[in-house]
Parts: sequence; structure tokens; C-alpha cells
Amino acid sequence: MQRDSWRLPRTPVNTGKHPRPTDPVLTRLADVIDARRGGDPGKSYVARLLAQAPDAVLKKIGEEATETVMAAKDADPARIVSETADLWFHCLVMLAHFGLRPEQVLDELERRAGTSGLEEKALRKALERERTDGPEKE
Amino acid sequence: MQRDSWRLPRTPVNTGKHPRPTDPVLTRLADVIDARRGGDPGKSYVARLLAQAPDAVLKKIGEEATETVMAAKDADPARIVSETADLWFHCLVMLAHFGLRPEQVLDELERRAGTSGLEEKALRKALERERTDGPEKE
Amino acid sequence: MQRDSWRLPRTPVNTGKHPRPTDPVLTRLADVIDARRGGDPGKSYVARLLAQAPDAVLKKIGEEATETVMAAKDADPARIVSETADLWFHCLVMLAHFGLRPEQVLDELERRAGTSGLEEKALRKALERERTDGPEKE
Amino acid sequence: MQRDSWRLPRTPVNTGKHPRPTDPVLTRLADVIDARRGGDPGKSYVARLLAQAPDAVLKKIGEEATETVMAAKDADPARIVSETADLWFHCLVMLAHFGLRPEQVLDELERRAGTSGLEEKALRKALERERTDGPEKE
Repeated sequence: MQRDSWRLPRTPVNTGKHPRPTDPVLTRLADVIDARRGGDPGKSYVARLLAQAPDAVLKKIGEEATETVMAAKDADPARIVSETADLWFHCLVMLAHFGLRPEQVLDELERRAGTSGLEEKALRKALERERTDGPEKE
Repeated sequence: MQRDSWRLPRTPVNTGKHPRPTDPVLTRLADVIDARRGGDPGKSYVARLLAQAPDAVLKKIGEEATETVMAAKDADPARIVSETADLWFHCLVMLAHFGLRPEQVLDELERRAGTSGLEEKALRKALERERTDGPEKE
Repeated sequence: MQRDSWRLPRTPVNTGKHPRPTDPVLTRLADVIDARRGGDPGKSYVARLLAQAPDAVLKKIGEEATETVMAAKDADPARIVSETADLWFHCLVMLAHFGLRPEQVLDELERRAGTSGLEEKALRKALERERTDGPEKE
Repeated sequence: MQRDSWRLPRTPVNTGKHPRPTDPVLTRLADVIDARRGGDPGKSYVARLLAQAPDAVLKKIGEEATETVMAAKDADPARIVSETADLWFHCLVMLAHFGLRPEQVLDELERRAGTSGLEEKALRKALERERTDGPEKE
């Protein structure tokens, strides 16, 4: 495995709440979503989703994932971008419901990439699956 | 609708390829994924996914969305973050297959938020759905 | 609504455990799945799924639903039938985990159809959704 | 593998259109759905779904699969049955759109079970997956 080529340049450590440089769009969206919590469900889509969380937002995640797959099968670039945005947005609402932040997801992605993790994670998953499915492969 | 409170602060316009400040993690991951294209499917999970795209990666998106929903139903914060990272990562691979970039998804998210779009989008979708389902509600 | 044309012919009531004539295939499959419970996970795929239920089988349901959608987008009849069979099969395993039977699902389908339920159910769902999404439509 | 214990009793061959005993509920539902084709989308939920097929019905399959998973995570028997019925119903509408019949799905399920196929199919899938994921497991 070409692990070295996977290792991303180390980013400087800082001591802020979100120790790695984060995406301003995701961070601001998460802040906006947090601010909607407890708002009037009659006036805000996000407040309504949060009031019915997690089920209402999880149902949307399943729905938007399916629509992303369908847009990709149609090879429609605009819809692929739009449906992926819908999917990520509802993920942000889900994270907010649990008091989680997109920065934690980005950290997890960086952690994996930064330690050649994409391959390691895939490897770990494949091995787990092998343990699960194993005997049938004999 | 409290649109003003939705409007995010305007970010300064710049003239780069990606006109808004973008997430270093997502941008770098997308670059790494692009670099894996055409690589040895026997050595790289991403090269293998791309070699079998879009179906192999779309199947993963459906799978990871389901696992995200299950982690959320278990209210398990670490798994919620981890499965969301898996879901977003496979979305990045899908985008790469179509020559699309995460910055376009972030732009779409910002565009909506910046023009009170979260509500407008939800409203438009609800209205579309009403047209679709409408007669039955009479 | 053309309700009368929806009403299916009444089937004769009987007093057996499964009061309506049921599908021999689904019934036998469910029996086979039940018989695998507690079996050697190293020798039986179903025993392994049940040993790791519900999560292992729910993950498969999400996966097979996605594959069904993909086969349909490809308009590939053989794969549509095959993936739908996979999806229904894993639903049977899920039902078995909870001590439920496919006959109950068929009864539910018949109950709806028999009382013009397809439309009523859709109407009820649409109305519920309207209550949920309602204010935004104003 | 305990294949013999998997082999279901052979059903007598007959020469009808649907050569194996089929489920009356699924057969009748499929007939009702077929009869709705081309109907007034303003009056019939099924006619509306078929008019917008396959995308409208595929989206519902993704949605109902997610709701089935959520009901199972809640271990709520009534909702598990109800959501599974929703999922199977929308599968029937999808099949109808492609001119396919639930009997074909049941035949596929029987074919697999009748030749110890549940294990064979799982084995085949696992082997395919191994070919796909293989090198990483080394």
C-alpha cells in the first residue's frame, strides 16, 4: 500500500476550540442551525426538524441519500451537487440535535487521511467484514 | 419567516478558482482522491472504488447513510461522527468520479443560507410536494 | 376517489393461525429462517445475520434498497427482480429477529387494500405530512 | 454447510402462468396496481406514483427502507410490520412500472431456497466482494 503518498501535510497545531482549520460554510451553517433550536416550528424548517429530531431528520437523510444516488445514476451534475448539499445539510441538523459539530466530522476525516487512514480504515472494515462473513469464504 | 436572522454575514469576494474560503480538509481530501484516480485498484481503496464507479460508491453511500441513521438511533456520539465521516467521504469519491468538487457543494450550501435559502428551499420543496400529492388532500 | 374499484374481493374468513391464504414461498422461507436461529454462525449466513441482529440485517436492508434503486435506474429487469428478492429476504430475516411473520405484513397490505386502504393510508400520510410541514406552505 | 437442511420440499410443477403457488395478497395487489396505470393522478396515489415513475417510487423505496430501519431500532413491532408493508407496497409499484410481477420475485426467492440458494447466493456475493476488496485483506 502506498501509504506515504496518502499522508497529507501536517497542519500546524493550534489550541482553539476547533484545533484544525475548519470550513467557514459548514461552521456558519452549524451555528445558524444551533440558533434555530427551540425556535418556532411554524416559522423555521430547521426548528421544526429539530423539534421532531432525531426521527424526522433521519428520515430525510435516508431520503436525500436515495436522491443523491438517483441523481448520480442520471449523471446530472447540477442535481448531484444539489442533492449532496441536501444530504450534508440534513447531516448538520442531525449533528446539531446531538450537540455535535461538523468540525468533529472534518477532524475525523483529517485524522484518517493524515495517518494514511483512508486505507487503514478501509482495511479495518474489510477485516471486520471478513471476520463476519468469514467462514462462508472457505 | 425570520429571514434576516438567516442571512449569513457576507464573505469577501475573491477571484480564485474557488471563490469562497473553503475547507482545507475537504479540499485536500478531494485532491488526494483525484490523485488516486487510475491508480492500482489492488493497492488503493479509492482507486478501486473509482474503477467501479459510480455503482460501487453509490452502494456505499446507501450503506453509510443507513449506518449513520442506526448510529443516531443508538444516540452514540462517536459512531455518529464516524459514520457521518464515512458518508461524506464516499460522497467526495462520488463527486470525484463526476469531476465535481466539494467546493461546489459548499457553495450551494452557502448560496441557500446566504439568501435565506434554507427556508426558501424547504418551502419550494414543500410546494412541489403539495403539487404532487395535492389532490389527495382535498 | 374511486374507492369501490379499489376494494378487493373479500376472501373467506378462516380461523387458522394465519387467517388468510398466505404465500407458500414467504411462509416457508420464514420457517427456514426461524429454524436457522441459534445455528452455527460459521455455517449459515442466516444464523450469522440473526446472531448479529438487528444491526447486521438492517444494514443489509439499507444496502439492498439502494441496489434495488440502482437496478431500477438501469432499467435492468433481471437485476430489479433479483435485488427486490434480496431486499425482501433480508426483511424476512429482520421480521424473524423480532418474532414477526411475513403473514402479518401481508395481512397489513390486505387490510389496507381491502378497505380502500391504499388511498386512505396515502391520504393519512399526506395529511400528517401537511401538519408537519404545514406552516411553511402558508 | 448444511445444505440438505436448507433444501425446501419441492412443490409440484404446474403449467399456469405463474408456475408456483403464489401469494393471493401480492398477486391481487399487483393486479390492482396494474389497473391504476394511466388513471387520474389527481384521484389515485398509485396512478400518480406510476405517472412519475420510476423516480417518485424509487424515492419512496429509499424513504420506506429508512423508516423500516428506524422502526426496527425502536423495536416497535406494529411499526416494523407497517413500515415493511409500506416498503413492499412501493416495491410492487416499482415492479408494475417495469411490467414485472411479484410472482417473479417469489420465484427468485424460491429458486434460491430450493437449491440451498440462500447460502449459495450469500457465498457468491461474499466471493464477489472478496474479489473486489481482496488485495486490502492481504
